[in-house]
Amino acid sequence: MTASTPSASVPVRGNRFLIVGGASLVGSATADLLLQEGAGEVTILDSFYQGSREAIRHIEDNPRLKVVQGDVMRLPQLLAATKGVDGVLHLAAVMSITMDRDPWVGLDVNIRGTQNAIEAACSNGVKKLVFASSNAVYGYGPGIVGDLVEGTPFHSVDAPPAAILYGASKIVGEQLCRDAHRKRGLDYVVLRYSTVYGERQHYRAANALYIIETHDRVRSGQRPQVIGDGSEAKHFVHVSDVARANVAAFVSSATDVAVNISGSEPTTTLEIVKLVAELAGKNLSPEHVEPDPGKVRLTSGGPWRIDHRAAERTIGWRPQVDMREGIRRLLAWREAAGQ
Amino acid sequence: MTASTPSASVPVRGNRFLIVGGASLVGSATADLLLQEGAGEVTILDSFYQGSREAIRHIEDNPRLKVVQGDVMRLPQLLAATKGVDGVLHLAAVMSITMDRDPWVGLDVNIRGTQNAIEAACSNGVKKLVFASSNAVYGYGPGIVGDLVEGTPFHSVDAPPAAILYGASKIVGEQLCRDAHRKRGLDYVVLRYSTVYGERQHYRAANALYIIETHDRVRSGQRPQVIGDGSEAKHFVHVSDVARANVAAFVSSATDVAVNISGSEPTTTLEIVKLVAELAGKNLSPEHVEPDPGKVRLTSGGPWRIDHRAAERTIGWRPQVDMREGIRRLLAWREAAGQ
Repeated sequence: MTASTPSASVPVRGNRFLIVGGASLVGSATADLLLQEGAGEVTILDSFYQGSREAIRHIEDNPRLKVVQGDVMRLPQLLAATKGVDGVLHLAAVMSITMDRDPWVGLDVNIRGTQNAIEAACSNGVKKLVFASSNAVYGYGPGIVGDLVEGTPFHSVDAPPAAILYGASKIVGEQLCRDAHRKRGLDYVVLRYSTVYGERQHYRAANALYIIETHDRVRSGQRPQVIGDGSEAKHFVHVSDVARANVAAFVSSATDVAVNISGSEPTTTLEIVKLVAELAGKNLSPEHVEPDPGKVRLTSGGPWRIDHRAAERTIGWRPQVDMREGIRRLLAWREAAGQ
Repeated sequence: MTASTPSASVPVRGNRFLIVGGASLVGSATADLLLQEGAGEVTILDSFYQGSREAIRHIEDNPRLKVVQGDVMRLPQLLAATKGVDGVLHLAAVMSITMDRDPWVGLDVNIRGTQNAIEAACSNGVKKLVFASSNAVYGYGPGIVGDLVEGTPFHSVDAPPAAILYGASKIVGEQLCRDAHRKRGLDYVVLRYSTVYGERQHYRAANALYIIETHDRVRSGQRPQVIGDGSEAKHFVHVSDVARANVAAFVSSATDVAVNISGSEPTTTLEIVKLVAELAGKNLSPEHVEPDPGKVRLTSGGPWRIDHRAAERTIGWRPQVDMREGIRRLLAWREAAGQ
C-alpha cells in the first residue's frame, strides 16, 4: 500500500489532463479544480450517454477546457484523446441502476471501457492514470459491517445481481491497472470512492438518491420517507473532497496503490433524511416505509464505516466537508440551478 | 441455497445437450457420461483455441455425438447451436495462466462468452443451463484459510492480477445467470469446481500442474520438486466426479443456486508430489525449491478446504474418487496415451 516513485508525480501546473467520462458530478468538479490550480489543458471526453452539457456549463468558457464527444468503447477515440496528455482520470462507468437495466452495456462500459482507457494511456506514454473505483469492491449485504479497509474482501451474499456485477467490474478495472503497471510500467492510483454527492448531483447513484429524493419530496410539501427504521449506515463523501482526492492522486508520488476515499463520518438514512428536511427549512417528520422491490437497494449487515486513513498516508488526503455542510451546498445549488 | 422447481429437472435419457467449450478435460468426460446415460444427442461446440480433437477422440465415433467448431464470441453460432437443445453446459473459459498472458482474450471469453451463451439459451428456450464456475470466486492469498462455503467472500489481497481477474470473471458469470433467472426465467445451476484433474489432463490449470509436472519429472528420472516446505493446502476433484456433478445438476430440480464441487479431502503439495512419485513407481524424494517468479501461483493463508455439503443437499452429489485412485487413473491414462 505504500509504493511510490518520485517520477510518478504529475503536478497540476502546466500539465495536460484528460477526464474520461468527465461531463458529470465528479468530472466537472475535478476539471474545475485542475483549471483553478493552473493545469495547462483539461480535456473532458464524454459520450453524453449519461453525462450532460449541463454538468460542465460552469466551466465551458474556460479557454483551457476542451470538450470532446467520444465513447470509451471506441479505442481510436481514446488513442486520439490521450495524445500529449500527462494525466488521465478514468471515470466513465455505469452504476448499479444502469447495470440492472442493461448488464451488457454496463459490463462493456466498465470493463472494455477501462481496457481501452488503459491501452490508450500506455500507448501514448501517459504519465499517470487515476482510476475511479468504488467501495463496491467490498460488496453489499450482511457481510458489510465494521471498518472497511483496503484489504476487506468482496461480500456478495444476498446482494442484487446488478450490485455484484458493478462491484466485480470495478475489481476487474483495478486489476487491469495492476496488470498494466507490471507489464507496461503504467503508473496509477486507484481511488475507491464511497457514495459521492454534491453540486450537479444526478439520479443514477442508488445511495445518493437518499438525499435528492428526500429533497424532492420535502420541497413539494410531502413527508420524507425512510426505509424501515432508518438505522442503516451509509457513508458519503462530498464531491469537492473527491475532486481534491483526484488531484492529490496525480500530484503525489504514489503508484500501484488503491485507497478509500470517504467522508469524515458515516451516517444513517434517518439522519440524512432529517438533515435534508431541516436544511430545506421544512418541519416534516419522516415516515417509515417498506423497501420498493422494483428498486436496486444496497444494504449492509450493520453499522460500518469506510476507513480513509490509507489515503492520508499515501496521497496526503483527508475529507474536509462534513454532511451538514455538503448537503447545505447541494440543496443551495439545486435551488439556484432550478434542479 | 435450496431453490428448486420440478420443472427445472432435465433428465438425461432422450434429451439433447450442448456443451460449450466441450473439447477438453471436463467437457469430454461429461459428454461421455451423458451418452452412456442415454442422452438423445450431445453436441460439443468448441473453437479449438484451447480445446483439442484429441480430447474427444474416445467418443467421436458415437453417432449421438455432434462436434461443431464455433466460438463463444460469436452469438449467431451459439444461437444456431442451442436450437432444440434441452440443456446447456457452459464450460468455455480461460484460466489464470491464459488470463495472465492476455487479459483481453480472457475477459472476452469468460464474460462476453457467458453473456452470449446465456442469451442463446434464453432465446431458444433451453430448459436449464449449468455454468462452470470455480472456487476462484473465493479468491486467493492469505484470506483463504479454513472452510470455504458458498457464502465465503472473495479474497484478493496479495493475489496476482490474473488470478483476481479470473475469479472476478467467474463472479460476473454467476451473476449473469442470476440476472437471467430473475428477468427471463432461465433455470440454472452454478457449479463451483475446485481444481479438476484426471484423464485428458492439460497444462492450462495452474494448480493441476502440481500433478502432471511432477509426473513429467519423475518419469524422466528427475527428483520431483515442491515449492517451499510443501505444506500448502490444495483441494482437487477428479474429472469423473465433476462429470457426475454436471449430470446431477441437470437432472435435479434445483435452480438458481451455486454450490461447491470438490474432492473428498484437501491435500498438500508435498502429499501430491509423493503420491505421484509412488504411483509412478519412482523412489525419488522431493527437492524443495523457491517459487518461480515468472509463473502465476495461487497461494492461500493456511490449511483450508472447500465444503461440498451444499451440493449433496441441493443436487444429491458427493465425490467418489479419492486422490490416490484419481492420480492412479490419470497416470495410467498418460502412459497409455503416450502423454
